[in-house]
Amino acid sequence: MDWKARLLVLDGLTPSMDEGGMLAWGTLADAPEDAELVFLGLDRSDGGEKACFACVPPEGDARPRMANPQLWSLMTALAPDQLALYGGARSLVDWHARHRFCAQCGGATRIAKGGWQRSCTQCGADHFPRTDPVTIMLVEHVRDGERKLLLGRGLGWPEGRFSALAGFVEPGETIEEGVAREVLEEVGIVVRDVRYILSQPWPFPSQLMIGCIGYTDQTEITLDETEMAEAHWYTRDDVIASLEGRDDAPMVSPPPHTIAHQLFRWWIAQ
Amino acid sequence: MDWKARLLVLDGLTPSMDEGGMLAWGTLADAPEDAELVFLGLDRSDGGEKACFACVPPEGDARPRMANPQLWSLMTALAPDQLALYGGARSLVDWHARHRFCAQCGGATRIAKGGWQRSCTQCGADHFPRTDPVTIMLVEHVRDGERKLLLGRGLGWPEGRFSALAGFVEPGETIEEGVAREVLEEVGIVVRDVRYILSQPWPFPSQLMIGCIGYTDQTEITLDETEMAEAHWYTRDDVIASLEGRDDAPMVSPPPHTIAHQLFRWWIAQ
Ligand SMILES: [Zn+2]
Ligand SMILES: [Zn+2]
Repeated sequence: MDWKARLLVLDGLTPSMDEGGMLAWGTLADAPEDAELVFLGLDRSDGGEKACFACVPPEGDARPRMANPQLWSLMTALAPDQLALYGGARSLVDWHARHRFCAQCGGATRIAKGGWQRSCTQCGADHFPRTDPVTIMLVEHVRDGERKLLLGRGLGWPEGRFSALAGFVEPGETIEEGVAREVLEEVGIVVRDVRYILSQPWPFPSQLMIGCIGYTDQTEITLDETEMAEAHWYTRDDVIASLEGRDDAPMVSPPPHTIAHQLFRWWIAQ
Repeated sequence: MDWKARLLVLDGLTPSMDEGGMLAWGTLADAPEDAELVFLGLDRSDGGEKACFACVPPEGDARPRMANPQLWSLMTALAPDQLALYGGARSLVDWHARHRFCAQCGGATRIAKGGWQRSCTQCGADHFPRTDPVTIMLVEHVRDGERKLLLGRGLGWPEGRFSALAGFVEPGETIEEGVAREVLEEVGIVVRDVRYILSQPWPFPSQLMIGCIGYTDQTEITLDETEMAEAHWYTRDDVIASLEGRDDAPMVSPPPHTIAHQLFRWWIAQ
């Protein structure tokens, strides 16, 4: 039997990588004796077939990415396919690290089905990795033929950094209702004709980002100051200047690996 | 102070309703002394303003809807706006009932922020209601100008009942990737040009259904028999016959309150 396997090198949740932005891998012999192993899938990239695993770390990390500056630089250094692989692995092992007990009875849980499930040792309940749907939305206003985009700066974000508004989809609402509620809550603006554009997984800790656009006839902003530091309207030229990183840009856009960046590119191409 | 409140009448997770399909409401005095109360929102429908609450029942129910025939008849009896209200309330109180303990440390949790959160009494971790993104997809094949739709019958479903394929979005994938993976896994078919159509919340227990269409050049089906009982191709006339509930229809469609039904209607209108 040809039995090849490799183990993602992680220090807690932090990967190792080479200068080309490739993730480092070890062998299963590197795993601690009592480690919980998550099966990530088969890698056929070099013609052979290797089973890929990752260890569940002692602790997880549910902080948003903004609270972890080390991650920010890591994400720009990893090649896009490597970032996607790391993101999926990170979501999974982080979920395991934060779900060692059963929410139903408080008993200990143990890893099952190669890491795609945890089962309670006490009441038998099965628990599955969680992915939270989040809407992220462009809000567009057109006056005299000029299109403008509403962008906001979250509380605690660096001065000058702006992005699309975003928020969790709540139980009982559609994607389109979630977009409308979020925009109304955060900036007091009513949107219509909400439309889906594209989606992206986001592994901090595990979100499905659902990118949409909505249109409004309203320009006046009523800020929810418990959520947002500021929000303003930007022209197409403003958005282009910021995507190009020009000195005269009125704001700093999110980096290329984010869905907000992709949404900005989509919008200026319209 | 004008202080009006009402409490959703629930026996476990089952609502009471009148003959017009309207949900029954009581007062807060009906709640047991030690009940956990979830705030559902303000009802302004009759001109006044009433705070709406529901009690967390002793036990939740994570079974899929198909496993609960009583629910099936309930859902067809409730008026659409009442079904949406009940669905949101049910998702929330069911989540509370199944999350009385902290997944991180096993300690007891207690309800917080009016029911939109639980907090651990031991480690302080906050936990939020969960909504799982699920893709549900039409798979279309065109030959000689005739459009056909791939529909499947799940394991344990009644004979003759068919619906669109569906599955959970996994950590690390986009909506479009989730659709393609699910179709390949369940019926061995490769889809292209996946497109979002519409979404719907589904409260059994708490899903965000994301309706899509994908196209294929392939007709041969390779069934995953651990997931599906059968799958076939249906013409536009077949789908119309089943939506009209005709005797000569080759299969039974999902009922009107389901997203699958809405997707079928969308497809025959194309
Ligand atoms: Zn348990
Ligand atoms: Zn805890």
